[in-house]
Amino acid sequence: MDTELNAGEIHRLLDIEEIRALLARYSHLCDARTDTSFVREIFTQDATDDHGLFGKVFRGWAELEDMYQRSSEFLETAAHFVTNEQIEVSGDTSTARSYVQCWTWLRESSHLGKLRPADYVLVGVYHDTLARTPDGWRISSRLLRPLGTGALGLGTPHPVYFAAYGEAPVGTAGTAGTAGSAR
Amino acid sequence: MDTELNAGEIHRLLDIEEIRALLARYSHLCDARTDTSFVREIFTQDATDDHGLFGKVFRGWAELEDMYQRSSEFLETAAHFVTNEQIEVSGDTSTARSYVQCWTWLRESSHLGKLRPADYVLVGVYHDTLARTPDGWRISSRLLRPLGTGALGLGTPHPVYFAAYGEAPVGTAGTAGTAGSAR
Amino acid sequence: MDTELNAGEIHRLLDIEEIRALLARYSHLCDARTDTSFVREIFTQDATDDHGLFGKVFRGWAELEDMYQRSSEFLETAAHFVTNEQIEVSGDTSTARSYVQCWTWLRESSHLGKLRPADYVLVGVYHDTLARTPDGWRISSRLLRPLGTGALGLGTPHPVYFAAYGEAPVGTAGTAGTAGSAR
Repeated sequence: MDTELNAGEIHRLLDIEEIRALLARYSHLCDARTDTSFVREIFTQDATDDHGLFGKVFRGWAELEDMYQRSSEFLETAAHFVTNEQIEVSGDTSTARSYVQCWTWLRESSHLGKLRPADYVLVGVYHDTLARTPDGWRISSRLLRPLGTGALGLGTPHPVYFAAYGEAPVGTAGTAGTAGSAR
Repeated sequence: MDTELNAGEIHRLLDIEEIRALLARYSHLCDARTDTSFVREIFTQDATDDHGLFGKVFRGWAELEDMYQRSSEFLETAAHFVTNEQIEVSGDTSTARSYVQCWTWLRESSHLGKLRPADYVLVGVYHDTLARTPDGWRISSRLLRPLGTGALGLGTPHPVYFAAYGEAPVGTAGTAGTAGSAR
Repeated sequence: MDTELNAGEIHRLLDIEEIRALLARYSHLCDARTDTSFVREIFTQDATDDHGLFGKVFRGWAELEDMYQRSSEFLETAAHFVTNEQIEVSGDTSTARSYVQCWTWLRESSHLGKLRPADYVLVGVYHDTLARTPDGWRISSRLLRPLGTGALGLGTPHPVYFAAYGEAPVGTAGTAGTAGSAR
């Protein structure tokens, strides 16, 4: 056994495990949020986030909090299912790609009651870079890119996504109901 | 390299890996079940399960088997997709949180044939405590809490869930078809 | 600390981590493919793949590439979400089982625009055997078996799946729309 090799490999496994847990923690904190302070537990202070939303890249805690605040205006809640993690570590930086399904419940559907289906599901790939900080690994940049033909898995998205992803759905607008329901 | 540190860290990684596999094995065994004996491979003998179903918390292998038996009366089969695992280990106990999508096919839809869509998808968070036993890690308590506005992702759930989650869906009852289908 | 035990356990953890990443990489490469050459990064040269499609088991890189080429004729794109990995390693071979949701966008729906929902979601279990090669772990055989009642999660599948999974859906054919839409 090459002890030195193993020390490096153990540290690599520990880093991968911590980063995978961070990607999971993002969902847990984001989906259960009552405010936007979770941003500071996940992202570096000068992190960038390019979700393709609101026509800009958000940079730094204050702007990221603003991005999540804006989305809270039309989202009642969401559930981010993260899978297919590919995590590479190089010293104190890391690159990670993962798949996400974002199941989304809009405020405008709240009259349908709590036991209603999601309004839509978005699907995409997170392209993250991460940094090792004194508080552990944090995301330093996040880019969301579509899976599928245009990031839509199911349902009809909020109009903010038409701008983000370049077009309104053709032929389905005005006819598609909430996920799984017929009108 | 601090050898003692690494010994502890290696054991922590091994525990996390085994617990992650146990959470996956639950799905594999539960979804392929022909009887309820899988319960004894996953849960401690005195484990509790609070799925929020049937108006009670189930305790111990016999009651857990009864819970799964009752659900088999209306479920033809289900597929539990588990993601976003967050696993903390402290000595011989562990706490784990994970996301689950439970895609569900009801017996009452069996006339639609085998190649039919799921009737509904439930979404939630498992809050588990686990214990290290002579047979490996086992779940000692499980609590399922809703994701989304009321644990429903898609479709219309079996009425047993209206009781579990507090209300019937408003406006969709009687109109929503099976997942992805219009009537 | 038993150093030899730990050396073996570290190597097992490294193998599991690499295999989990390979299962994720399959999705990333397959879903983003512009040709079928990704097959050579994932499978051994003489690998077999039994997706239950096209009435045969495909063997070796050329046949596997042919299988993916054939599916590209009706698929515009797909997104494979892999979860619930169970990975066992024994020397230079491994067996892995994992769950997959394959969200699928058909070419025949392209007139609906890019921001359209998936046409259907297939759900199944990958039963893989893997081999350690000079280039790392590779899949040497893959068998896809249905989850749910017939591998369909949502929507109406392309007819090639009726042949694969034994029957056409009864009562839903011709009425089910794209995922989440009503007609």
